[in-house]
Order: sequence, then C-alpha cells, then structure tokens
Amino acid sequence: MAQKKGLLQRLDEGVVIGDGGFVFALEKRGYVKAGPWTPEAVIEYPEAVKSLHREFLRAGSDVMQAFTFYASDDKLANRGNMSSQKYTCAGINQAACRLARAVADEGSNGGALVAGGLSETPSYLSGAGKEAVQAEFKTQVDAFIESKVDFLIAEYFEYVEEIEWAIEVCKRSSLPVVSTMCIGPEGDLHEVSAGDCAVRMAKAGADVVGVNCHFDPFMSLKTVRLMKEALDAAGLKPHLIIQPLAFHTPDAKKQGFIDLPEFPFALEPRVCTRWDMHKYARAAYELGVRYIGGCCGFEAHHIRAIAEELKEERGRLPEASEKHIPWGGGLTMHTKPWVRARAGRDYWESMVPATGRPYSPSMSVPDQWGVVRGSEELKQNSSATSEQEIAQLKITAQQKCSHKRA
Amino acid sequence: MAQKKGLLQRLDEGVVIGDGGFVFALEKRGYVKAGPWTPEAVIEYPEAVKSLHREFLRAGSDVMQAFTFYASDDKLANRGNMSSQKYTCAGINQAACRLARAVADEGSNGGALVAGGLSETPSYLSGAGKEAVQAEFKTQVDAFIESKVDFLIAEYFEYVEEIEWAIEVCKRSSLPVVSTMCIGPEGDLHEVSAGDCAVRMAKAGADVVGVNCHFDPFMSLKTVRLMKEALDAAGLKPHLIIQPLAFHTPDAKKQGFIDLPEFPFALEPRVCTRWDMHKYARAAYELGVRYIGGCCGFEAHHIRAIAEELKEERGRLPEASEKHIPWGGGLTMHTKPWVRARAGRDYWESMVPATGRPYSPSMSVPDQWGVVRGSEELKQNSSATSEQEIAQLKITAQQKCSHKRA
Amino acid sequence: MAQKKGLLQRLDEGVVIGDGGFVFALEKRGYVKAGPWTPEAVIEYPEAVKSLHREFLRAGSDVMQAFTFYASDDKLANRGNMSSQKYTCAGINQAACRLARAVADEGSNGGALVAGGLSETPSYLSGAGKEAVQAEFKTQVDAFIESKVDFLIAEYFEYVEEIEWAIEVCKRSSLPVVSTMCIGPEGDLHEVSAGDCAVRMAKAGADVVGVNCHFDPFMSLKTVRLMKEALDAAGLKPHLIIQPLAFHTPDAKKQGFIDLPEFPFALEPRVCTRWDMHKYARAAYELGVRYIGGCCGFEAHHIRAIAEELKEERGRLPEASEKHIPWGGGLTMHTKPWVRARAGRDYWESMVPATGRPYSPSMSVPDQWGVVRGSEELKQNSSATSEQEIAQLKITAQQKCSHKRA
Amino acid sequence: MAQKKGLLQRLDEGVVIGDGGFVFALEKRGYVKAGPWTPEAVIEYPEAVKSLHREFLRAGSDVMQAFTFYASDDKLANRGNMSSQKYTCAGINQAACRLARAVADEGSNGGALVAGGLSETPSYLSGAGKEAVQAEFKTQVDAFIESKVDFLIAEYFEYVEEIEWAIEVCKRSSLPVVSTMCIGPEGDLHEVSAGDCAVRMAKAGADVVGVNCHFDPFMSLKTVRLMKEALDAAGLKPHLIIQPLAFHTPDAKKQGFIDLPEFPFALEPRVCTRWDMHKYARAAYELGVRYIGGCCGFEAHHIRAIAEELKEERGRLPEASEKHIPWGGGLTMHTKPWVRARAGRDYWESMVPATGRPYSPSMSVPDQWGVVRGSEELKQNSSATSEQEIAQLKITAQQKCSHKRA
Repeated sequence: MAQKKGLLQRLDEGVVIGDGGFVFALEKRGYVKAGPWTPEAVIEYPEAVKSLHREFLRAGSDVMQAFTFYASDDKLANRGNMSSQKYTCAGINQAACRLARAVADEGSNGGALVAGGLSETPSYLSGAGKEAVQAEFKTQVDAFIESKVDFLIAEYFEYVEEIEWAIEVCKRSSLPVVSTMCIGPEGDLHEVSAGDCAVRMAKAGADVVGVNCHFDPFMSLKTVRLMKEALDAAGLKPHLIIQPLAFHTPDAKKQGFIDLPEFPFALEPRVCTRWDMHKYARAAYELGVRYIGGCCGFEAHHIRAIAEELKEERGRLPEASEKHIPWGGGLTMHTKPWVRARAGRDYWESMVPATGRPYSPSMSVPDQWGVVRGSEELKQNSSATSEQEIAQLKITAQQKCSHKRA
Repeated sequence: MAQKKGLLQRLDEGVVIGDGGFVFALEKRGYVKAGPWTPEAVIEYPEAVKSLHREFLRAGSDVMQAFTFYASDDKLANRGNMSSQKYTCAGINQAACRLARAVADEGSNGGALVAGGLSETPSYLSGAGKEAVQAEFKTQVDAFIESKVDFLIAEYFEYVEEIEWAIEVCKRSSLPVVSTMCIGPEGDLHEVSAGDCAVRMAKAGADVVGVNCHFDPFMSLKTVRLMKEALDAAGLKPHLIIQPLAFHTPDAKKQGFIDLPEFPFALEPRVCTRWDMHKYARAAYELGVRYIGGCCGFEAHHIRAIAEELKEERGRLPEASEKHIPWGGGLTMHTKPWVRARAGRDYWESMVPATGRPYSPSMSVPDQWGVVRGSEELKQNSSATSEQEIAQLKITAQQKCSHKRA
Repeated sequence: MAQKKGLLQRLDEGVVIGDGGFVFALEKRGYVKAGPWTPEAVIEYPEAVKSLHREFLRAGSDVMQAFTFYASDDKLANRGNMSSQKYTCAGINQAACRLARAVADEGSNGGALVAGGLSETPSYLSGAGKEAVQAEFKTQVDAFIESKVDFLIAEYFEYVEEIEWAIEVCKRSSLPVVSTMCIGPEGDLHEVSAGDCAVRMAKAGADVVGVNCHFDPFMSLKTVRLMKEALDAAGLKPHLIIQPLAFHTPDAKKQGFIDLPEFPFALEPRVCTRWDMHKYARAAYELGVRYIGGCCGFEAHHIRAIAEELKEERGRLPEASEKHIPWGGGLTMHTKPWVRARAGRDYWESMVPATGRPYSPSMSVPDQWGVVRGSEELKQNSSATSEQEIAQLKITAQQKCSHKRA
Repeated sequence: MAQKKGLLQRLDEGVVIGDGGFVFALEKRGYVKAGPWTPEAVIEYPEAVKSLHREFLRAGSDVMQAFTFYASDDKLANRGNMSSQKYTCAGINQAACRLARAVADEGSNGGALVAGGLSETPSYLSGAGKEAVQAEFKTQVDAFIESKVDFLIAEYFEYVEEIEWAIEVCKRSSLPVVSTMCIGPEGDLHEVSAGDCAVRMAKAGADVVGVNCHFDPFMSLKTVRLMKEALDAAGLKPHLIIQPLAFHTPDAKKQGFIDLPEFPFALEPRVCTRWDMHKYARAAYELGVRYIGGCCGFEAHHIRAIAEELKEERGRLPEASEKHIPWGGGLTMHTKPWVRARAGRDYWESMVPATGRPYSPSMSVPDQWGVVRGSEELKQNSSATSEQEIAQLKITAQQKCSHKRA
C-alpha cells in the first residue's frame, strides 16, 4: 500500500472519480433515517455500508469516502438523537473508516483512497463561536488520523466562514484537504459570492476546491465555473472538485434542493439518467475539473457513466462495465428487435426522457423561508421536536406559502 | 421451520407482501447486464444478491423470490449468451434458491417463504411447440423441487397459451402455483382478453392469479379488476396477485414499458414515490388482492410503503420502518424548520411531485412494431447479434417511427 | 342565389367546411358574456358579429352559421337573464340570420350557405317534458324558416332524447337537418352509447349526423368513428359531420371540457395550433366525414388550415391563404435567416410545441360532479344566482374535490 | 378635442393603458401575412383594422396605436415585398393614422390618444449608416405629423444605437416621445446592458422609456426593473412603459421569442390567461410603471384584465367589463352548478392551468444562431428569397441545431 499514489499526485496526473451518495441510497434500502441521516449505520449495518462502497468501487470510484456525513458530536445529539451517547462520535467515525478501508483495499490499481469527511455543524447554525465549532471538527479529524485515512474532505457547508474554520482544523494534520461547499451560483447563505467562497477556501489552505450537494450537475458546473474564474483572477490554482446531486433542480433557489417541496421523499422524477452523467462528466472535464464525483442521488450506474465517459482519459473501463458495455451495448442481446435497435450511443445520447407524469408540473416553487444562521428559528436543540412544535411549524409553512404566492 | 405457514394459508388469513425487482436494481448496482438480464449473478455475485433479498426482507416482504428470472436454458444460450454452457441452468437455479432460502431464514415470524419462478421462453417466442417449451420449464422446476422451495411462480408471460403450459408443468409438483402475466387491460399479445387470461390460468390450475411487470401499479389494478370480474363471472375463486412496475406508464400500449423509448436506460423520471405505493397498496387491498408486491423498479422503500400502508391489516410494521416512521416521521429530527414542517401524512399524501425536467414531455409515443409470436423478426438466435443486424434494426426503427407519426 | 347548391348536394359532391366558434371568440373581444353566452350580441354589436362571420368566410367556411347558440327563450330568461324580455327570442334569432346571410352573400362561388341552430334547453335539463321543450325549439325554427336559412342544425345536445325531439321539430320544415351531440366516446349523459346516439339521430330523420363541442378534434374523431361503425352496422348512411373544440382535452371525461377546472377562462394553453388542424382535417376526411368544421376555440386560422389541407379535394385555396401560403410560406420574407429556415411543411408538420409553462401540469382532474338531468342541482331558475347560493356551491365543490382525491 | 389631456399629463396623473398586438391578431384573422407582417392591411382591410382598434378601446385602452409596425419604406420593399411600390410608405402610414383616429374619437372621456410608431429598419440591420436610417424614420414621422397624432412611439428596437437615431428624428417634432426596446434582462444585441439602454434612451430625449415585445410580462418586468434602477442611479426620471408579449417565454434567451422554435405559428400553448394579466398589471403598477400595455399575443380580454385589475387606480371599469364582471362574475349565470362555483376571484387567482399537452415539453431550446448586425447573414435584400436560399438555410439550421445539442 506504501506505493499507492496520493490524491494530489493522482489529480496532477489525471482524473479522480469520486463516489456517490450514501444517505439517500441507504435510506431507500432501509438502513438510514431521513432527517437525522443516522451515520450510526456503520455500526448497526456494516455489511450494508460495505455493499454500497463496493458498488461504487466496481463502478469506477477512486475514492472510498467514509460514511461520516453529519457525524459530528453535536449532530449525533440533536433533536432527540441518542447516537452520541450510544455509540460516541469517535466510535462512529472510526467504524466508518474501517469499512471504507476494507473495501478500498479490494480495488485494483493498488486500491482506492480513503477519505474522512467533515460537514457543517448544528453548533454553527445555532450561533456557536469558532472555538466550540472547531472542537466538534477536531473530534472527527482525530478519529480520521487515527484511522489512517488518505485525505480529508470538508464538505456540505453553507457558510464560507464555517468551512474556513474546518479547513483550519484539517490543516493541522499533514493530509491533503479537499473543500466543497453546498452552494449554487448565488453563493453562500451570508451573501458571499461563489467566487469569493472559492478564493477564501483556497486561501485557508484547501488543496482542492469546489462544490457538492444541493444542486444538479449542470447548475453545479455553473458554480464551479464562477469559482474557477475568481480563482484565476486571484492567481490561485487549487485543483477543482465537483460532487453534485443526481437530482435535476432547475427550480432550486439559493438553499438548493432542501427548499424544494419534494425533498426528501418525492424526488424520484428528478433522478438523472446515466446519459445525463455522460454530459456532466464531459463538461466537468472540459472545464478543468479533475475530481469528479457525486452526492445525494448518485448511485453506482451514475458513477459508472462518468467512468465510461472518461475511459480514454483514464485508460480503462471500470469493472462494472462488464455488465453494461458503454452506451448500453448489452441490449444487442435483448429478445425484442426494437430494443436491440436501441443498442448504441446515437440512440441514448439524444434521448430526452418522458416523465410519465401528466399530472405533475415540471417545476416547483421552493419554500425559501429565508431562515439563515442568525435566525432564531434555526437554533438547534437536543430535545426531540414535540408534536406541538410540528403543528406550529405547519402553520408557519402555510403562512410562508401564501406569502410566496402573493 | 416445519411449522411455518404456507402461502395459501397465509393468503386465506391475510395479506402477503411480495418483494421488488431484481434485474433493474442489480443492473444499477453493476451486477446484472440489461438485455440478457444475466441471472448468473447468483453465482458471480452471491453477496450482492443476498444484500438485495435482505433489503426486501427488512422492508416487509413475506416472500423471497429466488432470482431466476429468464433463467431457462434456452435464454441462457440466446444471442451470444455463454451462461448455459458456463454455469448450466440447474446450477443457476439452485444457487438462486440457496441465496433466497438463506435470507428467508433470517426473517422473524418463522421466516419468509421462498419461491422459484419460471418466465416466458425464447423457444416459445421463436415458435417452438408445447413439448420443447415444457422441457425448458421442467429443468427449472426440477431444480426448484430439489431446492425445497415453498411455492412456484409462473410470471412474465405475454401469451396465455405459454403460461398454461408452464402451469401444467408446475402442477406436476405438489407445490402451490402462482401465475401472473405481464399484460395490461388490453389483454395478451394474441388478442385474448385480460379476463379470459385469468379464467384460463385458473382453469389450468393456478392457485393465485394476476399480473406482474410491464405496467404501472394503477394500470395493473385496472387489469386485475378485469380479471376479477371475469373470474367471478366464471365462478372461479383463486387468490389474486399483483406485482406491477414501479414506473409510471400512462403512455404504454399493449406491450407495456418495453415499447417505451426510455426502456430500459432512461426510465428514472417514471419511478414511483413511496407515496404512490401507499395509494396502490390500499387500492389493491380494497379490490380484494391479497398477494401484493412489485416488479421492475420496486426497491425496498417501495415495499416498505406497502407494509406501512397495511400495518393495521398485518398487525405489525416491518423492521425497516424503524428507519422511517410511517409518513416520513423521521423528519421531525431535521435541522431545517421548514423540512420538519413536512413530517406527516397530510403533507406527503397530497404531494404531486414536480419532475424537474422542463425539456421533457410527460408522455412518449411507444414503438409498437406490432411484432408478436409468429412474426419472423421475433425468432431468437443463439449467435450474438452482429453489427450489421443492429444497423438494419436501426433502419427498421426509423421507418416504423415515420409511420408512427403519419 | 337560386342556383346555389344546397347542403346535401355539396356533401354528395365533396367536402363542406363549417365555421368556427362564436361565443369564445366574441367573449375575448368583449361582446359576449361567458356564463349566459349572450346571443343578444347580434342586436347589440352586429358589426362585431359580422366581422367574425367574414373572417370565417375568408378562411374557407362554406357555411355561415347564424349566431343563435343558446338563444332559446327559456335560456334567455335563465338565472337573471333579461334578454328574453328585452329582445325576444324571435328578435334575436332573426337578427342572427340577417347577419349571417349578409356575409354569406359576400362569398365567392355563389355564396356560402346559412344555417340556423338549436341547442339543448334549460327546460329539458330541469325536467320539462317533450311538449314544453319542443315549444322552445319551435319558436327558433319558426324564426329560421321566416329568415330563409338554407338548413337547420341541432347541435350541442348531451342527451339523445332531447335531440330526437329537436330533430322532430326541424323535420316539420322541408330543410335539410344536421344533428350533432356534444358527446365523447363514452356516449350521452344517460348512458346511451355514442353509436346508439348516432343511430337514433339518423332514425329520427337527421340528414347529417355527428358531434360538436366538448372534446378536442382527436377525441371527437374517435367518437365519430364509433358512430360510423354503429350506423354501418344498422345499414344507415347519413352524411357525417364533426365540429370539435379547438382545445386539447385528453383529460376530459364524460362531460367534456365543462368539467375541466380551466373552463372557461384558463383554456389558453390548450388551444390547438393550425398544424393540429391539418392532421385533424386529413383524418376526418379519411374517415369519410364530409362536413368538417369547428366549435369553441376555433378561430379563422384554424378553419383556414382545414381549407389548406383539403385544397386538392376542394380544388381551391381560401381567400385568406393569400396572407399565409400553406405551411407558412410567408416566412420566406422574414428578416431573420433562422426564421426563414422555418418556411415549409417539413418544419411545421413535425413541430411539437413547448408550452412555456414549467409550473403547469399537462393534465387536470375534471370536476365530475356526476350531476345529470334528473338531479335536483341541475334544475334551472329564472332568478339570478344569489351570493349565498354561490357560497354554498363553493362548499359543495370543496367536498367533491376532497372526494375526488380520495 | 382640444381639451383632451395629453400623454404626459395623463401619466403624471395616473395610469395609461396601452393596446394589444395587431400583427398576430390580424394574422390569425386572415388579414396580415406572418413574415413581412404586411401593414398594408390598413389600406386593404380597413374595417378589419378598425374592428381590432375598437375591441381594444372597449377593453380599456387609452391609446390607439396606429398600425404602422414595420411600415418603413425599406421594409415595405424587402425580400420581394411590393408594398412600397404599390401603396407607398406615406400612404400606408397615413391610412393607419386615419383608422386609429376614427376609432379613438369613439371613446368616452374625451377619446383615446393616437400614436404613430417607428420600429427597427432593415437598413440598420444591413449595416446602413445614421443618415440612411434616419431618412427611413423621417418619412414615417412626417406622415405622423401630417396626420396629427398625439405622440410618437419608437418601439421594437434591438440595438440602442438605432433607437437613439430614431428618438433624434422624433424629437424634431414637438410631440411627446415614447421609446421601447424589445430587449430582455440581458440587454441589447450589441452587449449594452438593459440599464444602460434605458439611460441612453432617456438622455436621447425620450419622455417615456421601457420595453416592448420579445419577452413575456414577467421577464419584461425584470428588464424594466433593471432599467429603473439604472435611471435612478443616473438621476433620470422619465416615465416608464411596459408592453410585453402575451406569450410565456421562460425559455427565451437574448433574442427573445423569435428564436423559439415555435415562433410564429405554434405559440398557442404559451398564450397568457387573463389572470396572468392581473398579476402582471399589479406588479407593473407597483414597480412604478404608468404606461402599461401589451404587444404580440395581447388580445382584448388581456387588456380588459389590466383595466379590471387597475379599476380603483383608474376610477372606472372599461366598457367591455359589462360582458365579463371582474374575476369572471358572469359565471353565476351558467347552467351547470359546478361552473357557477367558479365565479369569483378566489378560484381564478390561484388557477394554475393544465396545458392539455402530454406530449409537449414545457420549454424549448432556442435557435440562438448568434447572428447580429454586422453578420453577413443578416443583410437584407429587396429580392424574394429563392428556394435555393431556403434550402441552404435549412442546412445551416440543421448544423446549428447539432451544435446546440453538443
């Protein structure tokens, strides 16, 4: 393993393919709860987590990102969550790394890299200061270092200030630091532009800079383009990364898909096809992005599509292409002749899929409560949400909705 | 295990929840190839197959259907498929049963039932007679009996004649026989009405009669209603079963989703939400259907939704509901107040999801080549399809398409 | 004028093009009120009515249908309508005929034909018997005869019984009688099939039989096809007529577009293009229909499209084609080259227009109160609807809507 | 007439409602040819033009804009147009003013105002200089002055430079000058921002500044907002005007609806409802716009909706409201109870109409050839376009389309 190339060398030499989303996939499979997004699955259902890692590995992922999303101590104790007490933050993060490493080592080419991830904290949302927030990060980073991960990712941050704090903690290690915010072209939630966010992340020391989550591949490409322009203008040259949603979000506003009324249980019609991912991968590559992956909604066939699109650049196809053949070549073996006629690039590349949903509009009006850090309503709480609180929230939602229409 | 209740007793006493689809789920995960739909995955990737069984079990499935779809010997040798030679039909079918049984035994309540399945054969499509086709079925049924499955399913038949032949073979065993055709309200491909199909299946000896695959839950309910009316009129009282697609297909015609231009690689926008499945499960139950499951596109969260909808009738929730809480109750733990406001039935029950696809129409024009058993173009072939054949098929597709428009 | 060919001779020899809709066009122009659909416009705004007749004449209409829709005496006195008193039924019907005749005589080819029309009555809806209802018809027919119309049209009937009564009154004259119901493939509102309706109209003496209003051109073609099959089976050979909506109504149920929530003030996105009308005209002609026209929503460019599609069959283009050139040939004179590239049949024939409405679904759920003649709620009333009654109706609508969803 | 209040006084005191579009309405009625948009209709079909003026007058228009769109001499002689020769530019413009004046004088409140309009010229598009272009404008302005119009409108300009030249010519008269460009939020076709365009129009002497045509009401409001901000920043205070399309164009790019593949013959599904116009009128008024009207696609019921929305501000309803009653009150007289339940604001205000078009996407990909003044392809030509030229254009379109997709 000593001879395994590190992240930055790989990025210097070519393209690195990230993995897909864990919380949405495992939620559908019954191992994660939407809301708290329970990372304790790594302890409760280790085989299920490993199965998903393995699917991504076979699909072409060069990185096994430990399933540590929202696994900070304050999140594990938020709104009635008993996981902090039951499993401890360190316990969960270390277990996650073990699973990721075990599967990474199954990979060919010397094995995949393992990354440990930090994300935004309830403490910050509730108004806590730098010291308190960094203490949360430190617990996780310590676990990552102990687990010998290959690099660190600070991801899913809505405020550049908080990710700067996270990067600072990460930089105390000697590991490469990847840094992605979950923002769109409009920038962070405290009115910092996407370009300025990128510059600040790079200046804070991030080796790789970009976006993840909250927006679809094509909106995310716009954001990364804005970031690149600002970085270029500032004379900064970090590597670029993009790990978007696999959900189409043309109607999302500043807070991304969280605000869409369909989040998180009715997003099915928005799921990208593998052919969308070909276009996305090509465009990302042409923009100069070299770390190309996915976030929520990305499943193995999406990652495989990235790997198939970039097969010349990478010099190989992923293992799982044996069960696909790029551009759906396996259809030559279908029993029906009109389906065999669909085997090939010309057919699928120009496919605009019908939705099968004549009673659905194509876009939604997002909630956009306009609640950001600093708003009383965003303060987090360790006790479970009461029925009365939910009832009150529904009234608020009703009022915001009427206002939205007006 | 001896005391485990059999299928028919369970159906007499209450509702039995089937499982979801294997080929589409495993194709996305990288273990199955679309086109031949490679059932040899049971030998090549047993853990991946077991993982999927386990997801369905946790979600509430009372049946582990062995992954034997399209695992007849003639299919395993069709259009360049080497699986017949490499693994043998018996080998694949027995391996499939072993995996299903292993997971079934993990279930609570004395364990889930295991079923072995037959489906339509290339031989029949190509015009082979009863004896040759039944020989194909017999190889599989022998493997099922040897593997001690709990019951047999003849499923995915487009012609009632062929399923009669399959039922006849199944009836030589002493096992309960379930029988489903992949037809819609227009009936089978040789102009036999849905009602007549049901009557013929029942008269051939099927204990449970209904539909699977090819159409969405709501169109399939229409078909089962027609079947029920015809069975009632004929004084026949088999149990009813429904295992539809989890894809919306309002635009499908007689041959179902195979004809839709999006099949099989661009069906994403059509995937049903879990809330669609609540409506489907309730409607199926009210129609008197007692075996309620899914086919292609059905993943664990869809099955869980059926089990949650029918929790009163079944007297319990499935294990996986611990990570959901019916009607998305886990959202009470979300950090954003407007998402917490979405926790509950009133919100999700009335959800009409936007598609996020402003450049997509809601319906497609199906291919409808009108090719059925008896057409030269439908004859199957053991050699791989040549590039020249594919080129010719594309020309044919172009011509049919112009005609379709005219 | 004496030498002008009559309707039946024209139909024997070729195709007759009807005109378009008056109430929707004049409502938009500010001369007719939606709800009572005020035919008194013929007295109040004669020039506006003549302008519309003239547009249809130039577009190719062979018939000027006097604007007598809903001009029966009981309708003119319904729900606070003072028109019966102010203008009298005879006064309105005669004025309408005068305007139609004046414009008809402007036409080339010996001039267009003038038709007087009857439609369903509030009396019938309210449960009145044959004598009372026929008295209503007689007042109008007397006016038509006195005005020397060329033929009579009984149109827009939801119940075959009532149109039989109307035909009977018409047959007392010596004029040709055209008879169209506003029904779809499901038949009349008292469960008489479309085919039976056609047979009964023919047997009652109608010379020309078919449908008008309530459904789009393509659903109406289905209905006429059912009618033709039943007439053929009964050995009857009346001419066929079709005068559908120019609104797409794929989501309409038995009561047609009245039940759609968009009726009558939000139907804009449903308006057919002229290219839809080419397809419609061709299909109608091929089905054997020889009286091809339109109803609500049809404007002059739609009629012109019918005339342009059938230019070979008719041996001429309409006057208004001078400002069009079939298939949009006038675009060769556009300043922008990419618009000039759109001049011609290949471009427009394959056009599937985008709707420009990303927040709109493609289909609506119709109201379907299920109220038909015999229901108390359908009884008509000469006094104006009170605010209290409207408030009560809104509550009823709310209840029906919840039920609809369930 | 002497005591009639002028435009600027009316704008100082309250709101002025413009009229709707002539070319699209008259094209549908058969009097204008799409492509050259033949303004000679004022001579060929004066009654048809007057009828349309009268509809707008009754609907609430305070301005009768003479139908002089594209009636410059070079346009009347472009691409095979013989109108310059046959009718002369002066003849057409004077006839247009006569018709407008005749109807304006029918209005109550001292009558409507009459405006003469200039629009962009083929000469400018082809690269002609200031002198040549201004000569074209002068011919029209001379006709307007001779015809004693009340004010001048320079409208439908894609380049601010050309409208400055037009304003300069207009300012040689003593009449108020209104100035609108057909641009969207992205600004003019030579990269001048919307705000800068507004400032330059105001500095050139325009009394009223804003936009017309090319974009829907809501995108046009965005543009006017940008204009207002720039004018405010520059300390300029002209009155504001908005006269948008009545077609929804969320998918339009810089060149507006001309680039949409549906232009001009398949825009039907995009037509705004009257209820859209209520929202538009209110938003325009709240933005501070005081000249509120429409352009292509606007028919009388759209203008009436503006007048009904602003009835408090204007202190009166238009004549045509007698046939409507604001918010569809006439439905209280409908025979069907569920339609009577739709009488009123609450129902129509929240209406999101279904499109009735399940095979249509909601958005199109515009052509965007990127051809602007300076491109060879945009040079105009007095000879008719040959079939060969059209064939070549179609090939170009095909190529641009492939590129568009890539």
